Amino acid sequence: MKISVIITLKKEVLDPQGKIIQQTLDGMGFNNINEVRQGKYFEINTKENDPHKAKDQVEVMCKKLLANLVIEDYKIIDVQ
Amino acid sequence: MKISVIITLKKEVLDPQGKIIQQTLDGMGFNNINEVRQGKYFEINTKENDPHKAKDQVEVMCKKLLANLVIEDYKIIDVQ
Repeated sequence: MKISVIITLKKEVLDPQGKIIQQTLDGMGFNNINEVRQGKYFEINTKENDPHKAKDQVEVMCKKLLANLVIEDYKIIDVQ
Repeated sequence: MKISVIITLKKEVLDPQGKIIQQTLDGMGFNNINEVRQGKYFEINTKENDPHKAKDQVEVMCKKLLANLVIEDYKIIDVQ
């Protein structure tokens, strides 16, 4: 199964990298942007064939390694 | 509108960072993983209210700044 996960900074955490991207886009003529937030994306290809088990396993990976839950949220967006 | 984009390395491009994450997960006991690929995620909040125009604008941003189309693909996954 292939599981797709997005890791984003929590709403209340500043994202200086996103801010710089927004400023750069603004300098390029994209003047109508309110905010850019950057995050990470992972595609995990596992031998597990049960979608529920695969999803549970990826949740554990997010909690233990992929995300820093103090400042980040994770969201599993696709299991196939 | 808020547009969400994923930038991934093209299939034929090696992803050493993903490989290291896979090895680390393996060392933590997740032994059934075939592959991990890492990518980037952007949430772009724009003043544009027309979803088609907002999407078109973000496509241009991807081509001009956010993605390196020689080695990366972009995918707009959500417009709301």
